Amino acid sequence: MNESFVLRGGIAFSESEKRITTYYRGYLVCVDGICKGAFTELPEQYRGLQLYDYGERLIIPGMTDLHVHAPQYTFRGIGMDEELLEWLTTYTFPEEAKYSDMEYAKKAYGYFAEDLRRCFTTRAVVFGTMHNEATINLMDQLEDTGVITYVGKVNMDRNGGEGLQEESAEASLQATLDWLQAIEGRYKNTKPILTPRFIPSCSDDLMRGLGKLSAERDLRIQSHLSENQSEVAWVKELVPESTSYANAYELFDTMGSAELPTIMAHCVYSGEEEMSILKKHGAYIAHCADSNMNLTSGIAPIRKFLDAGIKVGLGTDVAAGSSMNMLKTMLITLQASKMYYRLVDTDVKPLSFEEVFYLATAGGGEYFGKVGTFKDGYEFDAVVIDDSKMYSMRDMSIRERIERMCYNDADAIIKDKFVKGKKVYC
Amino acid sequence: MNESFVLRGGIAFSESEKRITTYYRGYLVCVDGICKGAFTELPEQYRGLQLYDYGERLIIPGMTDLHVHAPQYTFRGIGMDEELLEWLTTYTFPEEAKYSDMEYAKKAYGYFAEDLRRCFTTRAVVFGTMHNEATINLMDQLEDTGVITYVGKVNMDRNGGEGLQEESAEASLQATLDWLQAIEGRYKNTKPILTPRFIPSCSDDLMRGLGKLSAERDLRIQSHLSENQSEVAWVKELVPESTSYANAYELFDTMGSAELPTIMAHCVYSGEEEMSILKKHGAYIAHCADSNMNLTSGIAPIRKFLDAGIKVGLGTDVAAGSSMNMLKTMLITLQASKMYYRLVDTDVKPLSFEEVFYLATAGGGEYFGKVGTFKDGYEFDAVVIDDSKMYSMRDMSIRERIERMCYNDADAIIKDKFVKGKKVYC
Repeated sequence: MNESFVLRGGIAFSESEKRITTYYRGYLVCVDGICKGAFTELPEQYRGLQLYDYGERLIIPGMTDLHVHAPQYTFRGIGMDEELLEWLTTYTFPEEAKYSDMEYAKKAYGYFAEDLRRCFTTRAVVFGTMHNEATINLMDQLEDTGVITYVGKVNMDRNGGEGLQEESAEASLQATLDWLQAIEGRYKNTKPILTPRFIPSCSDDLMRGLGKLSAERDLRIQSHLSENQSEVAWVKELVPESTSYANAYELFDTMGSAELPTIMAHCVYSGEEEMSILKKHGAYIAHCADSNMNLTSGIAPIRKFLDAGIKVGLGTDVAAGSSMNMLKTMLITLQASKMYYRLVDTDVKPLSFEEVFYLATAGGGEYFGKVGTFKDGYEFDAVVIDDSKMYSMRDMSIRERIERMCYNDADAIIKDKFVKGKKVYC
Repeated sequence: MNESFVLRGGIAFSESEKRITTYYRGYLVCVDGICKGAFTELPEQYRGLQLYDYGERLIIPGMTDLHVHAPQYTFRGIGMDEELLEWLTTYTFPEEAKYSDMEYAKKAYGYFAEDLRRCFTTRAVVFGTMHNEATINLMDQLEDTGVITYVGKVNMDRNGGEGLQEESAEASLQATLDWLQAIEGRYKNTKPILTPRFIPSCSDDLMRGLGKLSAERDLRIQSHLSENQSEVAWVKELVPESTSYANAYELFDTMGSAELPTIMAHCVYSGEEEMSILKKHGAYIAHCADSNMNLTSGIAPIRKFLDAGIKVGLGTDVAAGSSMNMLKTMLITLQASKMYYRLVDTDVKPLSFEEVFYLATAGGGEYFGKVGTFKDGYEFDAVVIDDSKMYSMRDMSIRERIERMCYNDADAIIKDKFVKGKKVYC
């Protein structure tokens, strides 16, 4: 299969934030890795292309996971009765410390990369650990999957505990430069991203150094923001001159810009000031509802962020989120937004299924450019799904089937997956 | 395999509400369908029994689904942006009306029965529709699964809309008597349960008649209670003399007794008065967190119910809950209780994993007698699970593995399932 072809099947994609367009037995055209649109009848000029007919199967855009921790994957789903700071010190940091051992890292990252290849995700923004060698191995393995990613060597020069703390701000910055040098020109699909873990893990000097590096090298930044109340209070102590957690990032020049957008995971406790900072800098919020429920963090008011024009995508946040399955993340995103409306503020209407489908595909996809829908000119990321295990007593619309599969992720079987027109899993 | 044997594997079961006992490569003894306990070393007197060694697989008690609607199964996962009353009239009632057609009912209940046989559930309490013939077919098919159930022909003589309303209280009561007569002596594993849908669907005369019938025939009752705010307000209008929704059931003598316990699904809005009524009557609450989030109903304060000594089990509530997978129900139960704590009342601590495992097994199992754990004297309901698809980098404890599998239900593969010592699925 080269990168120009036609797929036929039950097609669904976001026309806008609030509207899903569907085609029953429609045609989806890919030319040189770029989508040329979906059609009821195949246009004349594409009739020479190879046609792959998927019959009754569904074809949806590939999904973007805006926030996932690769080294946490192999311990997902345990210790979930803890809250953030206890969970980090009890489970996460001791686990991440093991990635100084390359044999360990290779094997564990092999599991992560293989499962990422096999899930609904075609684009991901990934945390590694502070270890250069392990992070490079992670990038090597991700490059082989065909999934397009940003990957960060983590920076952390304080509060990491035994075996998981860089010696100083300079050492951390130097390691970052070494890492960038080692991978220069090495990948087609795998890009570096600067990754200060979060303010409690990074001294002021380190944060400032990363802000400077971002500007000098045109490098994007990812981090965490306002996930948990104890964390927010801690940041206020650590950066007393800041007016908010987001402002602390701003003081260190790490909030990015529209051209070089920063991703901030969580934003559960982001109020008006943080919203205006996120908006001003063109930052993306990686909404991680599964993680935020599991660690008893709370629920981020996504409706408010969307109304304010802030960019939002979804993150699985493995291992505080317990699965890389973006359908499950969609379900939990829907449930979280319904509970925010019911329990916190009835002026903040729940997200619709259309909106959550948009966030999982085009919302997060935008971080990668023209990605996440099947409009003309978008990069061709697609997943072909067999949902026939879910019996029904009547003909269901494509719209109903994609909603049903989100609520029953275990029964949605991936048959083929394409990234930029390349088949990466079947 | 007869009903006396020994299983070997990774065993986990509730010792109490707050404690899970585990055995790595332990022995689990079944004699004539009754559990004789779990052991590190196999006691002398059981060494003559056939031993089935499951190696590294997990063995847990079968789960009890205290609330599930069989006729809704084939449309699960759609229309989930609606709230209860709109969802009932738009999706549910028109679907249930189709069960007057026996060809339709047979086929749809076939799907339900087969998936019930293949899931973690070994005991279930099931709603049918108002149709006698279809409900008898459902019971026939459930009997064949080997799963032990209570099944209700639904009573509804008002507000059902076109094609889903019995003509009068007398007609509904007569149909109930006809149904009971038709199934008398017909089943070993399938029992009838009186099933007034909920007060908005049942006239005062019908409710009173069912209360009387319950007492005369020693029949249990199941219904819905305080699921949604609009529903609660409606019941107050319909039964103006009641002091609460639960009190309305009490006025009609349908709240049952310790010997003949009523199951009330939901109880999201049950306050002090309803709690005292539920407690007084020895009623069971079927907690349906997935459904309550999907229909934006809210979150039931399960910790309060447990502290008050009220009996609680879990229900999937298909199709407002979207799956019969009790592991997924456990995950959502945990997330719901964490959000109740975080967003509603920090005096109401989240449920622990131990507690939710208890509710899914022994909590609901108690409704069926000595069911739901592996202590000496309990009926032998067990599920054998292969969790090897979830890679790990280290030896995990049995306790960690059962938590992980609850957070990753799609990767927990059922290998064998036993009900009262009989293998019903492999």
